[in-house]
Amino acid sequence: MSEDDFKPLSAARVAVLGLGLMGGSLALALRGRCGEVTGHDINHATAASALALGAIDRAVSLDEALRADLVVLAAPPRVILAQLADLSRRPPPAQPTVLLDLGSTKGAITAAMAALPPGWHPLGGHPMCGKEVSGLAQAEAELFRDKLFILTPLPRAAPGAWRLAEALVQALGARLLLLPPDRHDTVVALASHLPYAVAALLVRVALASPDPALWAVASSGFRDTSRLAASDLTMMVDILLTNRAAVRQALADYRAELDTLAGLVAQGDEDALRAFLEPPQQRRRLLFPPAE
Amino acid sequence: MSEDDFKPLSAARVAVLGLGLMGGSLALALRGRCGEVTGHDINHATAASALALGAIDRAVSLDEALRADLVVLAAPPRVILAQLADLSRRPPPAQPTVLLDLGSTKGAITAAMAALPPGWHPLGGHPMCGKEVSGLAQAEAELFRDKLFILTPLPRAAPGAWRLAEALVQALGARLLLLPPDRHDTVVALASHLPYAVAALLVRVALASPDPALWAVASSGFRDTSRLAASDLTMMVDILLTNRAAVRQALADYRAELDTLAGLVAQGDEDALRAFLEPPQQRRRLLFPPAE
Repeated sequence: MSEDDFKPLSAARVAVLGLGLMGGSLALALRGRCGEVTGHDINHATAASALALGAIDRAVSLDEALRADLVVLAAPPRVILAQLADLSRRPPPAQPTVLLDLGSTKGAITAAMAALPPGWHPLGGHPMCGKEVSGLAQAEAELFRDKLFILTPLPRAAPGAWRLAEALVQALGARLLLLPPDRHDTVVALASHLPYAVAALLVRVALASPDPALWAVASSGFRDTSRLAASDLTMMVDILLTNRAAVRQALADYRAELDTLAGLVAQGDEDALRAFLEPPQQRRRLLFPPAE
Repeated sequence: MSEDDFKPLSAARVAVLGLGLMGGSLALALRGRCGEVTGHDINHATAASALALGAIDRAVSLDEALRADLVVLAAPPRVILAQLADLSRRPPPAQPTVLLDLGSTKGAITAAMAALPPGWHPLGGHPMCGKEVSGLAQAEAELFRDKLFILTPLPRAAPGAWRLAEALVQALGARLLLLPPDRHDTVVALASHLPYAVAALLVRVALASPDPALWAVASSGFRDTSRLAASDLTMMVDILLTNRAAVRQALADYRAELDTLAGLVAQGDEDALRAFLEPPQQRRRLLFPPAE
């Protein structure tokens, strides 16, 4: 097939499945920049709200959404996996259709995408712009601005499908990064999923303290280190369960470092403690220079 | 002795030993609100800078500093311990003198304070207003505003000494919390020292990754969870070494939670994962409600 089978973004009919924080924000950002932006949500009231908010041009049925030029799956990872299983049982699309997901893990999702009927041109996507809050009420057109948008290559997606996805990323004002699914899952386990786990564990340890003064004393350091513990649970459980291998490895690596630190504190070895703590200090300062 | 032996803060001569971030900020905040604010630093250039910045009225020798009405020890915990050992070898002060430290751990410091010669009226202090940066150049008069200032009671401090310390906390615009040394050390191990360790370990695990894409992918979640890893090393090593028992317990508690989580991820038990992650989510949301 030719790349010309895909319309440019400005003419494409885009359908967003799932109108929460991510899908709602994507629709808001794309509206007026595509041929049409339609939306579908299992919760009819959410779709009606998206229409009222001006995020979508029309609320459509699932069948109609799947007839768009570009279908975006904007749900937690395990819902996306269920949607892909459903697509694999349906007849192929009548015309070549680009399929993009916004799930936070990519290995299981791109494996399922590879097994779709012909006619689907699937790409894995992951916009790195989480919030602790979720839902359409939190959606904003600028959510993706200057944030990283990871696309994972699938060989079966035609060049024109790639071009459409790249145009979408550009329209959002996001920064594009191409990453294969396995590398994606390993690095996000370290950059996102481990930080979430680390934060949740910190609050659990604090919760086990019998001294109420702890909560008075917890200030900016505790606040920032624990921020991700407040993340949406449905999303995070889905992420942990669809990226299990990489998350387990990250937790095992973390435990090994923890045991080393506990040993150094027990020994009271000042030089060794400093040598252990200096590389992360230097790297953190390099990565995010102090604002002042 | 009578409480009247202590001047009110507005007339008291205050000497600050150590003119870094904490001592410099304290001097800046107190200047003009006391009889005099003098400063001493082992680094003469630092004392000269403090004078030039208007943080202190005069740079004085250690001997002269110790003749003030209120002596403030503003150094890392182990330097404070060395200063207290030095004071215990000196003759008692000529007149009753209030001694306040700003160290981040209190057990070892207040034990050393209890052994000082008569005439010293010591109080343990801990202003909870850390920054990742250190040094006089970062000092600011408003550093303590609306922050918690913990005072730990020592029976040998006369009521008038307490009154003076409380007036100092009030003059800084800080919020006073009284906490015995052992409770202080246990709760700050959980609220401050464990978050620091957790952040440093997170960056160490990331540093061990061979994939440079990790650093491109690390965004706001990694940034906030790792913030404390950039903390001043001299200060943090001192803290870990002077609060070893409580820090070791906190690390052991953390490891137990980590092992439980790793087990739940390995089992892939969705309900158990949710039950494990929900209490910290709820507590974090209660403790620091989302800004929006």
